[in-house]
Amino acid sequence: MLPTILDLASLRSAYVAGLSPLELVEEVIARCSASDDPAIFITMTPEEELRAAARELVARAPEPNSLPLWGIPFAVKDNIDVAGLPTTAACPAFAYHPQADATTVARLRAAGALVIGKTNLDQFATGLNGTRSPHGAPRSVFDRNYVSGGSSSGSAVAVAAGLASFSLGTDTAGSGRVPAAFNNLVGIKPTPGLVPNVGVVPACRSVDVVTVFAATVGDGIAIRGIMEGYDARDPFSRQATPASLPSTRPRIGVLDGAEREFYGNRQVEALYDAAIERARSLGAVIVPFDYAPFRQAAELLYNGPWVAERLAAVKEFLATNDGDFDPTVRVIIEGAKAYDAVDAFEGRYRLEALRQKTRAEWEKVDFLMLPTSPTTYSVEEMQADPIVKNSHFGRYTNFANLLDCPAIAIPAGFDADRHLPAGVMLVGPAFTDDALAPFADALHRTAEAGMGRDRNIALPEESRVSPPADDFVPIVVVGAHLTDMPLNHELTRTGGYRLRTGRTDGSYRLFALPGTIPPKPGLVRDPAFAGDGVEIEIWALPPAAFARFVQNIPAPLGVGKITLDDASCITGFLCEAHAVTGGREITEFGGWRNYVRSISPVA
Amino acid sequence: MLPTILDLASLRSAYVAGLSPLELVEEVIARCSASDDPAIFITMTPEEELRAAARELVARAPEPNSLPLWGIPFAVKDNIDVAGLPTTAACPAFAYHPQADATTVARLRAAGALVIGKTNLDQFATGLNGTRSPHGAPRSVFDRNYVSGGSSSGSAVAVAAGLASFSLGTDTAGSGRVPAAFNNLVGIKPTPGLVPNVGVVPACRSVDVVTVFAATVGDGIAIRGIMEGYDARDPFSRQATPASLPSTRPRIGVLDGAEREFYGNRQVEALYDAAIERARSLGAVIVPFDYAPFRQAAELLYNGPWVAERLAAVKEFLATNDGDFDPTVRVIIEGAKAYDAVDAFEGRYRLEALRQKTRAEWEKVDFLMLPTSPTTYSVEEMQADPIVKNSHFGRYTNFANLLDCPAIAIPAGFDADRHLPAGVMLVGPAFTDDALAPFADALHRTAEAGMGRDRNIALPEESRVSPPADDFVPIVVVGAHLTDMPLNHELTRTGGYRLRTGRTDGSYRLFALPGTIPPKPGLVRDPAFAGDGVEIEIWALPPAAFARFVQNIPAPLGVGKITLDDASCITGFLCEAHAVTGGREITEFGGWRNYVRSISPVA
Repeated sequence: MLPTILDLASLRSAYVAGLSPLELVEEVIARCSASDDPAIFITMTPEEELRAAARELVARAPEPNSLPLWGIPFAVKDNIDVAGLPTTAACPAFAYHPQADATTVARLRAAGALVIGKTNLDQFATGLNGTRSPHGAPRSVFDRNYVSGGSSSGSAVAVAAGLASFSLGTDTAGSGRVPAAFNNLVGIKPTPGLVPNVGVVPACRSVDVVTVFAATVGDGIAIRGIMEGYDARDPFSRQATPASLPSTRPRIGVLDGAEREFYGNRQVEALYDAAIERARSLGAVIVPFDYAPFRQAAELLYNGPWVAERLAAVKEFLATNDGDFDPTVRVIIEGAKAYDAVDAFEGRYRLEALRQKTRAEWEKVDFLMLPTSPTTYSVEEMQADPIVKNSHFGRYTNFANLLDCPAIAIPAGFDADRHLPAGVMLVGPAFTDDALAPFADALHRTAEAGMGRDRNIALPEESRVSPPADDFVPIVVVGAHLTDMPLNHELTRTGGYRLRTGRTDGSYRLFALPGTIPPKPGLVRDPAFAGDGVEIEIWALPPAAFARFVQNIPAPLGVGKITLDDASCITGFLCEAHAVTGGREITEFGGWRNYVRSISPVA
Repeated sequence: MLPTILDLASLRSAYVAGLSPLELVEEVIARCSASDDPAIFITMTPEEELRAAARELVARAPEPNSLPLWGIPFAVKDNIDVAGLPTTAACPAFAYHPQADATTVARLRAAGALVIGKTNLDQFATGLNGTRSPHGAPRSVFDRNYVSGGSSSGSAVAVAAGLASFSLGTDTAGSGRVPAAFNNLVGIKPTPGLVPNVGVVPACRSVDVVTVFAATVGDGIAIRGIMEGYDARDPFSRQATPASLPSTRPRIGVLDGAEREFYGNRQVEALYDAAIERARSLGAVIVPFDYAPFRQAAELLYNGPWVAERLAAVKEFLATNDGDFDPTVRVIIEGAKAYDAVDAFEGRYRLEALRQKTRAEWEKVDFLMLPTSPTTYSVEEMQADPIVKNSHFGRYTNFANLLDCPAIAIPAGFDADRHLPAGVMLVGPAFTDDALAPFADALHRTAEAGMGRDRNIALPEESRVSPPADDFVPIVVVGAHLTDMPLNHELTRTGGYRLRTGRTDGSYRLFALPGTIPPKPGLVRDPAFAGDGVEIEIWALPPAAFARFVQNIPAPLGVGKITLDDASCITGFLCEAHAVTGGREITEFGGWRNYVRSISPVA
């Protein structure tokens, strides 16, 4: 019996327990047939093809879970090519039949995932609300009167309703995040260029990103990891080096003052404030920052020349088929005709000037936490005022791609009536895609909001995201580098931090080295000695700083492995044995700090 | 008596020998008065102001050469602001009186340099030839019938004629390099964004770069180093991390097949081929590469929407003053009106697609060597066909800023009649500005072309550019990590390389450590011991690799400072003294290698 939400951990357990991909496929077919929302899909994978794909998978890789996404069903936004199914971008007259999968789809299929169908979207991915499609408006899984969010509307609802384990969206202005917020899902929006766009209908080519909707952060980043990687056929594909973030006590930027705008939605505001408190309880340092330059960059996306990218993507089609457009979408795209090349460059100048202003804010914080969408609306409210209401959804999402930021949207719980969900979004500097994930996952778990439509289920432990393997290296210090000692700054000024205090095992002897400035001790191991150990501190240094630090250690000191009283063995300060001859043995003080106190009692 | 060319080394020597900045200023004034080219300057610094600046310098920093550019005279292209002098961009009606120095000028003045005047240019920096100015055409210092190159025409001629030690140019299409080639100078063109453009009249703001003309590479990069650094007021200023290049046997890409185009100028072609041979003799690996994607990117700069940036820079002025433009410049700028915003974005898509193609070429080479200009023309030839002939000059320069490349243009010698010079250009990946310099300097020295108009003078030794301080860190190995020993791969696989072999001083004793796998020795210092030293090798490791390497050293080994027989003191393997107790002392073998041979003579 499969659970409502088909997250990776649950499905893999089911496979281990004997479920076959063919049985999974039948379940997915049954669920899709039983769905009460007719607007989720534009094209389903024909049932026989889906069964055939499951059989092919088992023939190719018979062992359960022997591929990273073995038998994992996923849905694909219908502006991303899947060979064998039409790509429509929610404009039937625009439809074409791709011969090849998009790079992302091909990589996911190679990893064992099964495409169940192509999902509905705001036409040409132009919108954040999900009502701009001739195939109808998918609805929030929590209230059919409310919008699903868009433009990746069907993709989000498919996962939240338990029809697929994950889905692909695209995100130019926020289309991979807003629907996650409205459907209690995780939305993974990569740094632009990390995941190739080959086989994607462009919205704004320079800032389009393929995204993942998933039940957990762990699922989402694992899937993104499979999709990512340079593809020279995409002009904007990049060869990326992951960037890191502090693994403890991150400084998180939050909205402040006049930049807090929820369009009157106190429920979402309260959930945002609660998320801030939950982040604080996880050890974050909360830092109000100035959102103004980010907001001003965000405004460029629709109220600036970038809309010409939307026209560039469809201009031939528009010339012959203007009657085939959603009226709102057409109005937006035709707005591009007002911009000339000078406007385009001046828009870029404005964006770069704002980027410089945001650098000052990034100095204060490690990443940002923003409301994913500051409010939501019913389908009726949206249709009554489609451009203005839509723009409200993008207030905190529109800047991310223009400013080269990855984002992870996570659920932030439900309003007081447990009626509608809201989300928050962690936004980091370029290529912190993985580095954002541990905190995002931890914060998601504190929301206790379930997954998708299942509000009560606990997040599986298997999908927990561990902090990235911190590449800082440890060093044991025993003397002048201890906290508050004269050379401690050599550790702190290069980004080092103290991991913990401790003691050596009993085989070490400590000596005051004669004639050292500042005074230093020498630690020497004597396997024949049985003492009480020596006080140490373990610090962590960035590798390059460690290299310089060791290069600067003067003789007779050096580093070797030191065995601690818990039997761990860590690189730290040792002294050449010849040098302690004639020095005063101070082992009895239990450590350098006590010895120093004993000789300068007033200090 | 000052030499013809006022390179930094010569001038600093003169200052050490007693020359005063006031005397230098008088000499510069006299040289400018005696100049036979009336088109070099647009505005001179008034003589009394120049004298006052010299007096102020001496008051501020009395000691000769006590500032990096103490008393060094320089000229500034007249599209860069100098407070107190008008900025005209070679369009008198456009002139304005800046209140502040450009960031570059301010930094140079703070370093002690003296502005002698504002130099002529192709109007609005639109051109590569030097004839598009109402102030006349500066001429090549080698033949008054020939163009000086542009747009930084006056700046190049001022240095080549010995009127200034260096000068500032700007470079969008090649304006900081082509005039260097035509005047036997070095042209330093930084990576876009490295040097701020605050206070510069834009040509194409997204790709404009402030450049240096100097007599030697060493002078040029020292000056660039003073100018560079982030300035948030420039939207395109970047916080840069220097990129490295191999310090030996670089792979240099050279033109091949149909991409070799010299417009019939066999003299320049022969000088290019000779430069390739000189590079080979310096140890370079010569690699023909495909210039086509670079050429196609180059063509976008004038035959694409980027020309709209030129219009953006002057559109208000053009609207009221179209009669004040140089006719050719106006034709070029008005061409921008044909482009709309869709064209602008499509141009960017084309550029990014070409950038992806160039990546495949960068895989093959470390940097490129190209002709700076493939040919030259007389002023008469240029004026007869001003757009086409100008475009010839830019064939190998136009791509660099669009593709984010730094370049160093260096002299490549004179044609067979010793009549006109030509240049070659080293072009590297982003932020290899410093890394390119040692090879550029070495290659320049093999050209034996003198400096500027002085064809016979030797390049001063003081300006020689050493390979960049390699940030690899040294480590002394004594046992299983020696070359051909079992753990040597731990050094080589992380990018380490052997610096040299050597011996410790006589105070070290070597022991075979019992029970180690693979067998390892322990080196221990004993100040009371007087032996013959122990064989060692010094290896260099990248810092992060060094950190991991040290972390993996098992007890009882570690690292500390080892004193060598030349008294140098380098971090290397030591052993805790307690561990050698009971081990066999093998100091008498002179090193681990000899000992291993002695116990396994057949190996």
